[in-house]
Amino acid sequence: MRILLTNDDGIHAPGLRALREELMKMGDVTVVAPATEQSAAGHSVTLLVPLLVQEIRDEHKRFLGWAVEGRPADCVKLALLELLPEQPDVIVSGMNSGHNAGINVLYSGTVAAAIEGAFFRKTSIACSLGWSRGKAPDFEAGAPIACRVIDQILKSNPPPGSLINVNLPSQELGAIRGVRVVPQNVAPYVEQFIRRKDPRGRTYFWMGNDFGCPDPHPDTDESALRDGYISVTPLQFDLTHHVAVRELQKIEWTNVE
Amino acid sequence: MRILLTNDDGIHAPGLRALREELMKMGDVTVVAPATEQSAAGHSVTLLVPLLVQEIRDEHKRFLGWAVEGRPADCVKLALLELLPEQPDVIVSGMNSGHNAGINVLYSGTVAAAIEGAFFRKTSIACSLGWSRGKAPDFEAGAPIACRVIDQILKSNPPPGSLINVNLPSQELGAIRGVRVVPQNVAPYVEQFIRRKDPRGRTYFWMGNDFGCPDPHPDTDESALRDGYISVTPLQFDLTHHVAVRELQKIEWTNVE
Repeated sequence: MRILLTNDDGIHAPGLRALREELMKMGDVTVVAPATEQSAAGHSVTLLVPLLVQEIRDEHKRFLGWAVEGRPADCVKLALLELLPEQPDVIVSGMNSGHNAGINVLYSGTVAAAIEGAFFRKTSIACSLGWSRGKAPDFEAGAPIACRVIDQILKSNPPPGSLINVNLPSQELGAIRGVRVVPQNVAPYVEQFIRRKDPRGRTYFWMGNDFGCPDPHPDTDESALRDGYISVTPLQFDLTHHVAVRELQKIEWTNVE
Repeated sequence: MRILLTNDDGIHAPGLRALREELMKMGDVTVVAPATEQSAAGHSVTLLVPLLVQEIRDEHKRFLGWAVEGRPADCVKLALLELLPEQPDVIVSGMNSGHNAGINVLYSGTVAAAIEGAFFRKTSIACSLGWSRGKAPDFEAGAPIACRVIDQILKSNPPPGSLINVNLPSQELGAIRGVRVVPQNVAPYVEQFIRRKDPRGRTYFWMGNDFGCPDPHPDTDESALRDGYISVTPLQFDLTHHVAVRELQKIEWTNVE
C-alpha cells in the first residue's frame, strides 16, 4: 500500500513524525507537507506566488519526502500532480495537535488536505489528537491507536474518494472508551477577541480562545470526544443545502436579464 | 435593513465598491473587509498574530467601514463580535472578481466569509461575477443585477442563518438568460503546475491555471453559468456524509482502547 502523508502543523511536527513511524508498518509512506506551520489555514491554496520545494531526509538519513513552502492543500496537489512517482492508494493528513471537530472542520488545514485528496478521488483520512488540560498531545501513544482505526476503516473497503475525519479524545489514552461513528457537530462556538493598543497607539484584536463549543449536540463528533470516545466522521465536499434548493426554486425571478 | 459587506479581494477592490453603491439603495451598509487581497484564502483564520484594524472613508469622505489586516473570515468575526455597534440583518460578501462555483467554493475566501456569517446564524450571501474572455468583470453593470437577485432572495424570507452563493455569468451582461437555482458542481478540475528553476537553481512550481472544469455535471452551478444563467446555490456547513455514517457504523472496532 502506498501512503501519502501530509499535515498542517508542518513537516517537522512531532504528530506527523509519530504517525509516519506507525504508518510505515502498513505500507510505503511518502511525506509531502508544509515547510512551516499552517494551522487554521483552511482550504487556502497558493496561486499568486510560486511554491518552493525541498527534499527532506529523516533522522536516520532515510528519504522522508518533500517540504513545500505552501498550504496543506498545495502539498496534496503537488504530490499527486508532480512529486510522487506513483499515485498513492490512500492519503493521511495528521496527526494534528488538537481536535478538528464541529465547525472547526472548516478552519482546519489538516481536514482541507484530506478534502483536496478527495477532489482527486483518493481515499483520504484526516487524523487529530486532542490536548489534555493544557498538555500537548502524546503522539507516541496516540499514533498506534490512530493507525488501528485507519486500518479498520480501510479494511471495510470504503469507496474510492472516501473522506473520513478521525479524532482521538483528550483524556489519558489508556481510558479511551471505544469508537463512535457520528456526524459533525454544527453548534456555534463561543469566541472572544482580546482588544488592546499596540506600542504606537493603534487598536489591535487577537483571537483569545481555541474555539470551544460549550454545548455540543448529542451524538456528534464533539460530544463523542467529550465522552472519551474516538470520533469517526465521514465527510463530503458538496456544500449544497438540497432542501433550500427546492425552496428557492419557488421564487419567480424578475428583472434579472 | 443593516447590511455588513465584506469580500476577499480587499476593501479597495472595485467589485466591493460597486456592490456597496447598489446595496446602499437597500439599507445601511457597513464594510469590514481585508486590507489586502485574500483570493483563495479559503476558510483560513488568524490565530497566531494580532489583527490590526483601520477606519476607512470613501471618496466622498463618508464613513465606509474598517480594513482588517487579516482573512475574510476574520473580518466577519471581528465585525459581529467587536466592530459593529448593532448586529446586521444580512451579510453580503463580494462581489468577487471571478466565479466561485463547483469545488472552487471550498477555496473561496468570498464564500468562507459568508459561511462564517452563517456560523453566527446570520443570513449570508456570497456574490461573484465571471471574467469574459480574459476581460475583467464589469462591476458597474453587474452590481445592480446582483442586488436585484439578493433583494428577491431576501423577500422570499429565507430562515435566519441561510447561506446562499450567487454567481453572475461571464457573458455580456445584457445577454443573461435568467436565474437557475442549482446544486454545487462536484466534478473534478483540470489543473497543471508550471515547473521551473529559480535564479539559484532550485525547483519551483506555480499553479498554472484558474481551476477550469471541462465537464461540469448538468443542472449545477457551473453548467448554469456556462449556459448564460445566474446561478443561485444555497449552501450549508455540515460536511457529514450521512450515507457513509451508516456504512461505517457497521464496523466492529477492536483494539482501540
